[in-house]
Amino acid sequence: MNSFSAGDSVRIGIVGLGRLGRRHAENLATRVSGARLVAACSPIADERRAARDALGIERLYDTYEAMLADPEVDAVFLVTPTSLHPDQIIAALHAGKHVFCEKPLSLELEACERVVAEAKRFPHLKTLIGFVRRFDASYRDAFEKIRSGRIGKAFMVRSQTCDKNDPDGFFVRFAPTSGGIFLDCSVHDIDLARWLLGNPKPTRVYATGTIALHPGLAESQDVDNGVAIVEFEGGKLAVFYASRTMAHGHDTSTEVIGTAGALNVGRNPRANRVEIADEHGISNECTPTFYERFADAFVTEAQVFVDAVRGNEPLPITLQDALEATRIGIALRESQLSGQAITFDAVPALA
Amino acid sequence: MNSFSAGDSVRIGIVGLGRLGRRHAENLATRVSGARLVAACSPIADERRAARDALGIERLYDTYEAMLADPEVDAVFLVTPTSLHPDQIIAALHAGKHVFCEKPLSLELEACERVVAEAKRFPHLKTLIGFVRRFDASYRDAFEKIRSGRIGKAFMVRSQTCDKNDPDGFFVRFAPTSGGIFLDCSVHDIDLARWLLGNPKPTRVYATGTIALHPGLAESQDVDNGVAIVEFEGGKLAVFYASRTMAHGHDTSTEVIGTAGALNVGRNPRANRVEIADEHGISNECTPTFYERFADAFVTEAQVFVDAVRGNEPLPITLQDALEATRIGIALRESQLSGQAITFDAVPALA
Amino acid sequence: MNSFSAGDSVRIGIVGLGRLGRRHAENLATRVSGARLVAACSPIADERRAARDALGIERLYDTYEAMLADPEVDAVFLVTPTSLHPDQIIAALHAGKHVFCEKPLSLELEACERVVAEAKRFPHLKTLIGFVRRFDASYRDAFEKIRSGRIGKAFMVRSQTCDKNDPDGFFVRFAPTSGGIFLDCSVHDIDLARWLLGNPKPTRVYATGTIALHPGLAESQDVDNGVAIVEFEGGKLAVFYASRTMAHGHDTSTEVIGTAGALNVGRNPRANRVEIADEHGISNECTPTFYERFADAFVTEAQVFVDAVRGNEPLPITLQDALEATRIGIALRESQLSGQAITFDAVPALA
Amino acid sequence: MNSFSAGDSVRIGIVGLGRLGRRHAENLATRVSGARLVAACSPIADERRAARDALGIERLYDTYEAMLADPEVDAVFLVTPTSLHPDQIIAALHAGKHVFCEKPLSLELEACERVVAEAKRFPHLKTLIGFVRRFDASYRDAFEKIRSGRIGKAFMVRSQTCDKNDPDGFFVRFAPTSGGIFLDCSVHDIDLARWLLGNPKPTRVYATGTIALHPGLAESQDVDNGVAIVEFEGGKLAVFYASRTMAHGHDTSTEVIGTAGALNVGRNPRANRVEIADEHGISNECTPTFYERFADAFVTEAQVFVDAVRGNEPLPITLQDALEATRIGIALRESQLSGQAITFDAVPALA
Repeated sequence: MNSFSAGDSVRIGIVGLGRLGRRHAENLATRVSGARLVAACSPIADERRAARDALGIERLYDTYEAMLADPEVDAVFLVTPTSLHPDQIIAALHAGKHVFCEKPLSLELEACERVVAEAKRFPHLKTLIGFVRRFDASYRDAFEKIRSGRIGKAFMVRSQTCDKNDPDGFFVRFAPTSGGIFLDCSVHDIDLARWLLGNPKPTRVYATGTIALHPGLAESQDVDNGVAIVEFEGGKLAVFYASRTMAHGHDTSTEVIGTAGALNVGRNPRANRVEIADEHGISNECTPTFYERFADAFVTEAQVFVDAVRGNEPLPITLQDALEATRIGIALRESQLSGQAITFDAVPALA
Repeated sequence: MNSFSAGDSVRIGIVGLGRLGRRHAENLATRVSGARLVAACSPIADERRAARDALGIERLYDTYEAMLADPEVDAVFLVTPTSLHPDQIIAALHAGKHVFCEKPLSLELEACERVVAEAKRFPHLKTLIGFVRRFDASYRDAFEKIRSGRIGKAFMVRSQTCDKNDPDGFFVRFAPTSGGIFLDCSVHDIDLARWLLGNPKPTRVYATGTIALHPGLAESQDVDNGVAIVEFEGGKLAVFYASRTMAHGHDTSTEVIGTAGALNVGRNPRANRVEIADEHGISNECTPTFYERFADAFVTEAQVFVDAVRGNEPLPITLQDALEATRIGIALRESQLSGQAITFDAVPALA
Repeated sequence: MNSFSAGDSVRIGIVGLGRLGRRHAENLATRVSGARLVAACSPIADERRAARDALGIERLYDTYEAMLADPEVDAVFLVTPTSLHPDQIIAALHAGKHVFCEKPLSLELEACERVVAEAKRFPHLKTLIGFVRRFDASYRDAFEKIRSGRIGKAFMVRSQTCDKNDPDGFFVRFAPTSGGIFLDCSVHDIDLARWLLGNPKPTRVYATGTIALHPGLAESQDVDNGVAIVEFEGGKLAVFYASRTMAHGHDTSTEVIGTAGALNVGRNPRANRVEIADEHGISNECTPTFYERFADAFVTEAQVFVDAVRGNEPLPITLQDALEATRIGIALRESQLSGQAITFDAVPALA
Repeated sequence: MNSFSAGDSVRIGIVGLGRLGRRHAENLATRVSGARLVAACSPIADERRAARDALGIERLYDTYEAMLADPEVDAVFLVTPTSLHPDQIIAALHAGKHVFCEKPLSLELEACERVVAEAKRFPHLKTLIGFVRRFDASYRDAFEKIRSGRIGKAFMVRSQTCDKNDPDGFFVRFAPTSGGIFLDCSVHDIDLARWLLGNPKPTRVYATGTIALHPGLAESQDVDNGVAIVEFEGGKLAVFYASRTMAHGHDTSTEVIGTAGALNVGRNPRANRVEIADEHGISNECTPTFYERFADAFVTEAQVFVDAVRGNEPLPITLQDALEATRIGIALRESQLSGQAITFDAVPALA
């Protein structure tokens, strides 16, 4: 089941058919070589019907357990609420399935550790947490340039995840369970910073934020604009910014500063290659959401997962990476709530 | 054969497995919904073998005639030398196959006219000449903005097709049969100008050029840098630049100027979203060849073709468009050789 | 009078106090070392009064002859209608005054030749025609980079002078005497192309244009958007664009293409260093008129003139340069009117 | 002495003729209307001689006291070591002179308060601390746009002052007296943030940093790259970055984020309007030092000071502003040294 001959496809069951789930499903159905999307799981009948009609999926399940019991499914794609991730991953591993799971792994360190421990028991099964930016061509180019010494020794990352303001405030309703802006948005930047700086250990963090447009966040002690500083061993630094209130679009960018130069990814979140000259000057439109920005990276991510499963090759992101991102994200949240810098001596050391 | 039920795939045979042919083949095999790449034709045994090994194509032909006789092929993709296009298209139509053919349709007006006339006899068969830029997301966005009145009345296009210098001078050897820089490169810009300006009729052209780096072109009376002005009815204008000698990469860009604004597509041919700051300043790398620039457009182009075949829907580019592009390209070449402006009274009117 | 000791100022009389004249006057009064603006000449009493009140100029003249008779004036600044330039320059030289004169020297070749011939008789007097762009820091940087070989051998210039649309159409009323768009606007680009390409001789030109917004120009056989190609000896090329109808501002830019790279000056005519992100995307405002773009260059131009007068040093632009620019501009106009390419054999050779 | 009639110039004595002092002197001598640079003070004979020879200054002093006694001096320009600022300002006020003083006012809060108190006793004398960025045309444009509501309510500033690496490490030798990177560099960003956010009161700060290239800084407990977060009343935020180690040039930029948009000043520190295309891609050179970036702002700053003195008008920056910048800078330094967030309750309240 988990050893693939040349030419075998990986038979995938998708779990969760919300907006992002449908996109993963479409990618798996049409753009990922070596993958076959054979099953879909959703408690909502309309979503199952849509999966069958639009993508021709025939194996439809209304419970996760039922899908895990299907021997025709080699791997699951979990695009489900974060709170479900740890148990769903562990259940999949117990059922002998490879797992792709959307980020973050979990909002709780203990749950992350539990997943890491269980996964060690199934070394032949692949588990990938979807830190999609690592699969973006521009981020990958930046990573390769850093590795080749193009900017000397990289010592600092500045990274932001800024969403276009949603006047409906969907994320306000989501705030009680999102873990807050740092665990929901900055977790991407945390992962990038660790990756681009060579996986240094964090030593101290400070975070704070403000509510610019969505007073409803106060109830959850969340903010719609947050900033943070993370210090790592060896004098490495990261500065993060996360926002829910941009006017111009989704604006993810990352700067890496080294001793001989700097790299910037995504400084201007251009929607495409068009520039407009009119009475207001010269302008370009911006990517409206993270999806337009990272559409190709989602495909690459799925392809890398499928290739690793087929070839039994190592994945570029480990569960330990996902755990570390959560660990730093939790510390940022704690700092934001306490108004104090948090040192990592205070956090239980990991085995 | 040419009426497709919902769910039927278009079975495609590719003809020509050179560099661009292989890329079309890969796209058809992996990224185009509703397409099945079932056959490949090449006189070169190694290319046929590669098609079978890399893409799993089982129906392999060493002659075009043999492929056309295959009833399992619904459509052909011609990625062959331009001089073969007209006869190959006509033969495919006679064999009842839909046709996708790389640009240009032909270097000779009479051949273009012959294809147009034959195609009229097979109205149920689709024929698409691959002016790939029309399928690029940025060009399409520009087109839609113009159509919606974003820049007032569009009256002028400035467009360039500039290739990175190839020190080996492959195109020098190709010059005797390429039709010259205007028919080989500017034909794209001609097509874009017609499309973006609303298909006006040309009235007069002037073209000239220079040899900057490749003296071997003199034999073919070709140049490695050419410039041209095309005047259209209604006071519309186009200015073209084509070059084989860029240092920085493939640099295709197009500006459309209107009475209330202007649009630019591709002003800086960025390779990706990375910017580099170092002792030389701030820089970005550029797309090395047209393929990196238009990789997605090649997929969209194939998808549009396949969708039109399956749905029996009209194509966005007609054979008459391809003929007009050749007609203007020939006039540019004639102007370059004569040193005179060419008026379109002198060109035989088209039926 | 024309030999200056260290510390002597050049005493300048300005002629013409229209909008540009006043700006020259202000620069001379406040920003040019070694200059003293001592006199002003205008037939309009209000303008003379304004010169006295705003700039403290005490020597005020209502006729040019009277100013030339003033022994306290070492040099004149002519900011007058083009038709007056030749006679005014010659009269100044006869009166022993150095001359700065706004571009163009004249719309007529014969008049240019007359000025060149007269100036030869007064080698101790400086005459500078104000091709201001040559004094712009960015153009100067480009020139130096080209000279140092940064782009290999420069073989092509693309240059544009595009003004923001003036709905009042001032230039329409000015059209009968402006010489047309090529002599009025492109003359700058012609001068730049000659300078940046190493002063090659023109061999053939072609020009045409269109009326996009100002039908009143038809009476003068002028256009509001013109394009032109100039061929030079040695295979060098220039392509020009001039427009009166830009929506976004004054947009002057110049590209120089060489065998090892290319330089662009002013690709985006940014008003300043501010970028705006809002619901329309990311934008920058543009320079509204040529003056905001070249304000500093006007000061440098005056400084260079004053320094050359004081130090009896050669000027960077010769009268022959100004004559050549007019000669090419006239040929462009002739091509636009005739619809034919104009070769320079047909133009009387210059002594 | 401190009431000026129309037409009276302000007679200025400059104190300190190091690199920046000489530039101030040149501006005052040649580019500031209504100013006369009449005196210069330096303990170094060569500097006094240079001032006389290059700028024609005749009143030369080797002690500050002697210059203050000169009745022909209306105002002093202090371009001296920071530690001297407070006493020199107070002495000037006692001598009846207006004062321009380079930033920062002082590294010590008590000294700032002393100057504020003394200045109140001389309300007819102007004192300006040279926060030069407030006089830059781009920053001023941003300020006006914010004031006009262009980005809604501004709630966050991100600002950086990053110098090109000086391999000689001049600033390492200067570190023991510079007050550290935050008081030396970020003090500009602090002032900008206060100005652009409407002068909110700080509530808490956190700062840290790293030594990337200059280990010699460790002795002074300074860093060559520092980052900081400042929180203000009303939920306003600022994030600062200061660096001594940029490879590409002096890179000052500031982003202001509001509820309806964002403004960025100086995102790409372009040296001029030239772009270069070569085998490395497309690039622009960067401003090498703060002086090239702010050369015009230094002139405007001096002009505003002179105009305010002549017209007895209020200055746009108060001594209280300068004190507040120092106050926040000191807190950043304290946070950097302690590793703790610093709240402003702990700082003695100002009268």
